[in-house]
Formats: sequence, C-alpha cells, structure tokens
Amino acid sequence: MTSLRVLPLGGLGEIGKNMTVVEYEDRIVVVDVGLRFPTADMMGIDLVLPDFTYLRERAQDIEAIVITHGHEDHVGALPWVLRELGETTVPVVYGGPLTVAMARSKLDEHKLREANLEALPDGEMVRLGPFELELVHMTHSIPDSAAVALTCELGTVLVTGDYKFDQTPVDGIPADVSRLAELGREGLLLLCGDSTNADRPGFSPSESVVGPALEDLFARCEGRIVVTSFASNIHRVQQVIDAAAVLDRKVSLIGRSMRKNVNIGRSLGHIEIPEGMLVPAREIDDFPDHKLVIVSTGSQGEPLSALRRMAHRDHPAVELHDGDTVVFSATPIPGNERAVNDTVDRLYHIGCDVVTAADAPIHASGHGYAEELKLMLNLVRPRYVMPFHGDFKRIHLHTRLAEAVGLDPKDVFQGENGRPLQVDERGARWGSREQAGMIFVDGVDIGDPADVALRDRRMLSADGIFIVVATVSEQDGRSVVPPEVIFRGVPSEPDGQLVEEICAVVDASLARAAQEEIREIDLLQEVLHDDLAEFVYERLRRRPMVLPVVVEV
Amino acid sequence: MTSLRVLPLGGLGEIGKNMTVVEYEDRIVVVDVGLRFPTADMMGIDLVLPDFTYLRERAQDIEAIVITHGHEDHVGALPWVLRELGETTVPVVYGGPLTVAMARSKLDEHKLREANLEALPDGEMVRLGPFELELVHMTHSIPDSAAVALTCELGTVLVTGDYKFDQTPVDGIPADVSRLAELGREGLLLLCGDSTNADRPGFSPSESVVGPALEDLFARCEGRIVVTSFASNIHRVQQVIDAAAVLDRKVSLIGRSMRKNVNIGRSLGHIEIPEGMLVPAREIDDFPDHKLVIVSTGSQGEPLSALRRMAHRDHPAVELHDGDTVVFSATPIPGNERAVNDTVDRLYHIGCDVVTAADAPIHASGHGYAEELKLMLNLVRPRYVMPFHGDFKRIHLHTRLAEAVGLDPKDVFQGENGRPLQVDERGARWGSREQAGMIFVDGVDIGDPADVALRDRRMLSADGIFIVVATVSEQDGRSVVPPEVIFRGVPSEPDGQLVEEICAVVDASLARAAQEEIREIDLLQEVLHDDLAEFVYERLRRRPMVLPVVVEV
Repeated sequence: MTSLRVLPLGGLGEIGKNMTVVEYEDRIVVVDVGLRFPTADMMGIDLVLPDFTYLRERAQDIEAIVITHGHEDHVGALPWVLRELGETTVPVVYGGPLTVAMARSKLDEHKLREANLEALPDGEMVRLGPFELELVHMTHSIPDSAAVALTCELGTVLVTGDYKFDQTPVDGIPADVSRLAELGREGLLLLCGDSTNADRPGFSPSESVVGPALEDLFARCEGRIVVTSFASNIHRVQQVIDAAAVLDRKVSLIGRSMRKNVNIGRSLGHIEIPEGMLVPAREIDDFPDHKLVIVSTGSQGEPLSALRRMAHRDHPAVELHDGDTVVFSATPIPGNERAVNDTVDRLYHIGCDVVTAADAPIHASGHGYAEELKLMLNLVRPRYVMPFHGDFKRIHLHTRLAEAVGLDPKDVFQGENGRPLQVDERGARWGSREQAGMIFVDGVDIGDPADVALRDRRMLSADGIFIVVATVSEQDGRSVVPPEVIFRGVPSEPDGQLVEEICAVVDASLARAAQEEIREIDLLQEVLHDDLAEFVYERLRRRPMVLPVVVEV
Repeated sequence: MTSLRVLPLGGLGEIGKNMTVVEYEDRIVVVDVGLRFPTADMMGIDLVLPDFTYLRERAQDIEAIVITHGHEDHVGALPWVLRELGETTVPVVYGGPLTVAMARSKLDEHKLREANLEALPDGEMVRLGPFELELVHMTHSIPDSAAVALTCELGTVLVTGDYKFDQTPVDGIPADVSRLAELGREGLLLLCGDSTNADRPGFSPSESVVGPALEDLFARCEGRIVVTSFASNIHRVQQVIDAAAVLDRKVSLIGRSMRKNVNIGRSLGHIEIPEGMLVPAREIDDFPDHKLVIVSTGSQGEPLSALRRMAHRDHPAVELHDGDTVVFSATPIPGNERAVNDTVDRLYHIGCDVVTAADAPIHASGHGYAEELKLMLNLVRPRYVMPFHGDFKRIHLHTRLAEAVGLDPKDVFQGENGRPLQVDERGARWGSREQAGMIFVDGVDIGDPADVALRDRRMLSADGIFIVVATVSEQDGRSVVPPEVIFRGVPSEPDGQLVEEICAVVDASLARAAQEEIREIDLLQEVLHDDLAEFVYERLRRRPMVLPVVVEV
C-alpha cells in the first residue's frame, strides 16, 4: 500500500531553516527551503542550511518547490538548493506574488536566472503529479503568506507556514478561515502547524494596533525619530510612513534591504507612499529634526546593519545625537539579545531616548498565540497532527494544545528533523530515519559541520597555534639549523626562555627519533607533535594547536 | 582644598566587575573587587577583571579593601588584585562574616594565605586613616550583604552594593532602614546606588514568596524534582530544603560550588538542614523518584555545570528521564539566554517537564525595583548621586528616578569607569580621567584585551591559517627544496592544484626577491606574506592568516 510521507528536513527541534519533503507514489513536493543564521560557536560560518542530501538523491522525482512566504527561514536556502540540484531540474517554484518576487531577487544576486518561478494565486488549484496543490491565504508579518494544501488520494496535508489569525490586517485581507473550515469539513488528513508562539497564552495582538501606538509615540517626540524594524515587514513600514505623514514628517529609508523590500512591495501594490514623502539619505541634514523619521535596518543588532553603525557613530549618512528617539519596532530573536542590548546601551550613551516593545505596543508578533493554534485545530479538524516550526519545548506545548481541543495523544506526532511520518489508510506511524542536519555556508562553498576546518578553527580560537619548523639532514635526520618556533594567539606570550626550551625539546625528539631510526617525515612529525604538545601543556596549562613541520634538506 | 574622590574602575556602563576607589587626603579605601564572565567574542578568555593599574601605582596608599557581599561580581577579582599589589601590602580586607568566609575560600584556591581578612559586624565603626568605615546591613540574594558608609571630614559617601528592601527576608533581618534614615538626617554627601533593576517599576517581590510557590509546585510533581539555582543563594537553597521536608522528600546537592556554599553557609548558621535529610549523589538511585529533590548548579546553562551535563545525558550520577520535573529557580543573566534555552530544550527532548520563573513565582530578584531605589533616595537624602552597577540605560533610568524624588539634575552624575567624581565644600565635579577598562585572565596569566594573542585568535577563528615554509640557500636566497604548504581551519579545503599554485607564487616571490637582492629574512617573509595574502584572497575570497616561514640552510 502506498503511503503519504512527510519528511521534515529542518524546523523541528530548532527555530529556523524550515524545509519539508511531502511524498506520494515516489513523487515529491518540497515545502519551504529556509536557512538559519549561525550561532557564536560556528566560527566564520556565514549561513546554516538544512542538509538536503535526501533531495540530491531524489532530484528527478521533484514535482515542485512551494514557498509559504518570503522570510529567510522559509526561502533563504533556495539559491543553494537550486544550484546543487540543477536549476532546471526542479520543474517549478511556486509561491504568492511577493514571495516569488523576493525569491527571484535572491536568485538574481546568486546569478541564477534559469529557474522557473511562478506566482500562484491563493485558492487556485495546480496538479503536481499525484498531488493537487493549493495556497490558502494566511496573515503573517509579511504580505502574501500562505498555507500549503497538498491533496492526494489518501487525503489532504496542510502545512501552515507561519501564521496568525489577524482579524484586522493592514491590507484588509484576513486569513481564509472559510477555506480552512471547508478543508476541515472535507476531513483533513494531517496538519503540520507553526508552533512558534505555542508558549504564549491568548490571542496575538493585531498588526493594526501598532499604527496608532506609533502615532501616539511620534506625537510625543520633539527631536528626530529613528524606527528600526524587519525590512520585510512591509505593513509595518507602511504604518511608520502613515504615522509620519499624519505628523507632517518626511521619511528616509536607510539600509540596503530596507530600500530593496520597499521597492518590491511598492511595485506589487503592498505599500503606498505619498508623493514627495521620501527623502534620500544624503538630504537628511536639510530637514529639521522634528520633521524627520528615519526607517532603518538593524533591529537585531546585526554587526554591519545601519542602526548598529549609527550606534557606533560610524554611519556615513546619519549622526545620532542627544534628543533623537530610537524606536525598536521588533523584538530580539532568541540569541540576538546581547547584540540588541549592546546597541541600545550605546544609543543611551550617545544621549538618545530608546523605546522598545516593552515600553509601548509598537510591535506585534507575526505568529499566532496558543488560542490561535487551537482555533486552527478546530477549523481544520485534522485526523493527525505534527507540530512544526519550533524547538522541542514548543513542539511539546503545541502537542498539549492539540490534546486540549480533543485530539487523541496517539494522533499527535512530536517529530524531529529526518524522521518521516508515514500515513496510509491503516493509520500513521514513523518511518525509518533519513539523513538530516545542518550544512554550513562558509564563504561561497557549502560543507559539513563536522568538517575539519571548523574543528580546527574552534581549537585555534581557544588557545592559538604553535608552529615549529625543524630542518633536518636527508642523510642522518639530525637538525641542520636551529628549529624555528612561531606562535600566534597563544595565551601568555611565550618568552625567549620558553622558546629555547622548546628548541631543546625538538632537538631531543629528533635525536631520539634518529636513534630509533624513525626517518619517515610523517612519523617524525608525529613524534615531535606528541613531545611538544605534552611540554607546552605542562608549561602553559593550555592546549594550543601544535604543528611541527619537518623540512629535509 | 582637599576633595573626596570617588573613582569607579568597574560596574558603570556594564553589568559586572564592580570596583570603586574612594580617596581622601591621598588615602584610599577600595570598595568591591569584582569580575565579569567573558562574552562569546573574547575567545579562550576565562575571566574579565577591572583594569586596576591605578591601584598598582597607589598600592602604598591603600587603607583597606571592603567587600559588600560574596558574589563574584563584587569579590571575584580579589585573588588577582592581592597577588599583583602584594598580599600583605593591603593592610586589611573587610566584609561581613559570610563574605569574608567566601573570600577566604577563594584565596585558598589560589594558594594566597597571607592576606589579612577581617569580618566586620554591621554597625561597628572602624577608623581607616582619614575615613571612618561602617557596614550597614542590607538584604540581597546572599546573606551578609551590606552597604558601605565611608565618612571623612567632608561628609559621608554611601556605596550601596547590591540591595533590595525585603521586608520579610528568610532570615528575618531586614535592611537597616533606621541607620539609613539616620545617615540621611545627618546629611549624606554622596550616594552611589545599585541601578540593576532601575528599569522595573514597583517593588521587588520578597524572597519569602518563593518558598510557598516551591512547595505548591513540588506538591503537584509526581516524579523526581531537580531544582537549579545560584549556589550562593543560600536562603533559596534553604527554602528548597524546607519545601522538600514538608513533602517528605530527601535532598541531594549536586555540583561542587553548591556543596561548598552550603557547607560555608551551614558553618555560619545561615542554613539549617534536618538530620538525615541529605543524600549523597551516589545514593540517589536508592530512593524512589517521588522521594527525591535534587538541587543542582547550572541555572545559567554553564558549559560544564551539573545541569547542563544532565541535559546532555552526560552526568555521572544523575540520569534524567520522562517524568522528571526540572525547576529553574533563577532567571538567565543577559547573554546567557541561548545557553539556558538550549538546556531547557534538551530537557524537553529527554521528556522532562520544565518550570521556569515565567510559569510560577519561583524566583525573586535580589535587586530592588524602581520604587525601592526611590525609597533609598528618600531615606538617605543625598546631596549628590552617582548611579552605580548598571549599563548606560540603567544609569540613565536611575538618574530619572533621582529627579523624580526631587533631586536637581545637576546633582546627579552619570559616570563611566575611570571618571572620578570630586566633591568638596564648593560642590561636585568630574576630575580628569584615570586608566580603566578590562584585563583578561587567559589561563593563569592576566593581560591586556588589546593583546596580540586575542587579535590573532579572532583572525584564526574566522578564516584559519596558511603556513608556507620556504627553505632557501644561504648563498643565493633561492629555494633549495619545494615549499611546504600547510593549512588549518581554512574555508573550502584547498585542493592539490591550489597548493601547487601557492608553491608557484612562493617561487616567483623568492626569485623576485633574489633579483632585488632582498636577503634579510624578515624582509623576505614580508614580501612572501604580501604576495601570498593577495593570491589567497583572490582565490578564496577569504582572509586566513598567512604565515610565511623562511629557513636558511
């Protein structure tokens, strides 16, 4: 009997890099191809992608990639996935119009221009091999977000993407609860639902509450106002512009991604900016402080972002000063707290006033709270549930919510990346594990996290490196010139005496090796390494990398 | 005219490493000698101390060091300070009895046994050159906390240390508000007050609310309970033990610092444990789950802590399982959020239930909230105020609180480390800056953060290292044997072809140098470095450290 397989390759047991393989009759639809940003211990790593080995092996079976919305954690890995699988191997990439526009702009940056991207209007059906695909409109912190409904003979699986039930979204188009209810009446087979805010009770506030709060706040500011927010949150930027307009302030957009996203949003009609409202960065100083709102990237304290540079007094166009008010219309993503706090503190040091979401309702989460997750469960009435998008805590709490609305605990599957759920007429059960995990983008290449380079970098970063170059005679393996001792990043700078002692260790090692007739360079280097590492640890109580180089002349 | 100088060497514009020099008639009293823990970008660094260069130069003028309480951020730098200044150069170190016991235990670990530590009872006066010293009892998250009152001819400066106004502390001894009020009536010259919770409105909850909340929580747990908290929070441990006793559960203390602090607390009568209550770690498995409470270190997700090891299924004595409840009776210190979240998520993955301070009132901060800072200001009625212990945001908010209770803004001094406030009969003003900042403990040694080793380690950690050994003839500077190319931690593992190309670059460089008659080894290495670095960047778009070694034979 053929079963429907849902294999998460990312997004479970973590926040980010969402990616799921939905499979029936050996045909595959991929939902989302997201990335994560590296943590501090991933030294020198630029980005983290889901390990998509499974898809490399099954590239020919892919009917389509479907993207729920344009955030990096759902679309960011697309360039690497398409490059590796073959740009035209994947027949089509679907998403809402804005999602597709953002994906295209991303592929352009990677010089990938062959891929077939198609905007799919909400509610329109598309046949993909054994599946029928439909996007169901949802509300989130970026326009054109959708849930993905994939129907095969066995029934329908709904992957929600990120969502909230905003009853008063800024663009006036709430989530399509009617279609969700219809799916529920028809009998949904499996719900894969966003767990991000499973730990927050109640309902999330509407995005529309932010506008009036910004207007109130702006009205109380006498100096310049800097608002920072996610550049992709186009409705937020719209509300900042509207509030500025009411108070007769001009707006300047600072930061490359802010300008880019506003341009894309404008061309698709998601954002309206009155004529003459925008001021280019270079003209900021032509306007008095109380006539200006600056909208800037950097709400997460990112190292090279516009706001961070302003806080370090290092931005070419904006010099902050006493009397400026900086408004954080965003909350820190877990892990970014320190960077955000550092930025805030530098702003205080400059003399700015800082207003955050803790002070006024100037931010609304894009993810539904517990009652909205329950509403989703009650609307679609799924036979089985697999909580998505969350660390293990949130998956666990989402499971409890499912149980609270009456699902049998055995019908809720708390998954992990790489563990496929298999559903057929007899029921649902775990299949055997597939390869899943992280791959790292390190410069332009991608590689394995277990990779030697990263392990070496961790070691180098902790205790530095000792390099000892021994030049030995080809004839008898004895030292020809005194060893060279070089060190970098080693704790407590070694003094001349230590260097001399190291040279003595090298000479003793070489002499012993010569006696034991060890002449093979690799073996010699091993002997030197062991003797030197032991000596250095004895003396420094640290374990720098020890690298002996033997040169034969 | 002689002025009173208050020079903060740490704790302003940051959280941690509190240290202040109070000076009159060229005589010095140091209040607190704290440390900070390193942030992720301080690679391989163990601890951060205040730069106390100022004290090295003035060591002979020190009358005493006074410690407000036994937390690391107030006493942790003592071993390094005493070792550098000379153990017996500092005539005496004062503090409350528990503070002194903890300081002594710390000095013992560093084999410093000559220092003169003396316990000073609250309210007792001691003459220190031109000063009179008195400790005023305060409440905080460790017993024996005190504010330091230093009186000279000009008046009294009060350094509060960390404090809250707990009206129902666990040991029944509230802060000595009567003495504070008396100081106010006499006319306090300068208040240096804790700003840690200046951003929280209202009053902090009493430590005593935690006990009943723990008891309620324990009563609902059917399996084993693991409570994690700061080991120095002796009253918290007492309340855990009391709650366990009520529910007829035994207690096991896990983690070295937990056992050490409980022992010190017990010997000084701060903690009472009923006979037969404690179970050694090795006997844990002899008790059924519902008869046991484990009290563990690791509330901050510290890498080698007991709880972190349990969460990684790597603790020798405790194997957590489904049905265990882990109680975080602490909140993450800023910067530790990710480590704590990771630990929590691993516990969920094991199947534990996790309860944090967000779920139940099982933690109370040791620092007073805004209304308590105002109460302090109203009690001591200072002529001048200098907010202490806080980043610039909290110092700014503390300043606003001072203004709210009626202080003139020009009498509130928002300081920075290294900026002395000078007070005399004509008023208060900033003096000229003194050296201040961080010094790093790297292994056993201490050093400058600008130090080359750390800069090198940052570089190594980002892009790794290329080492090229060229062996040249002493006669003509030409290559004798082909260059050796070694790399570690370099992104995208170089292949054979790249190595060959590098060798070609080396040969070309050497030939050019020979032609230009560059024979000096240092110059040769410089030429090689520049050519190689340029080539490597061209090819890899990264900047690994490039280290050419030229050996002459």
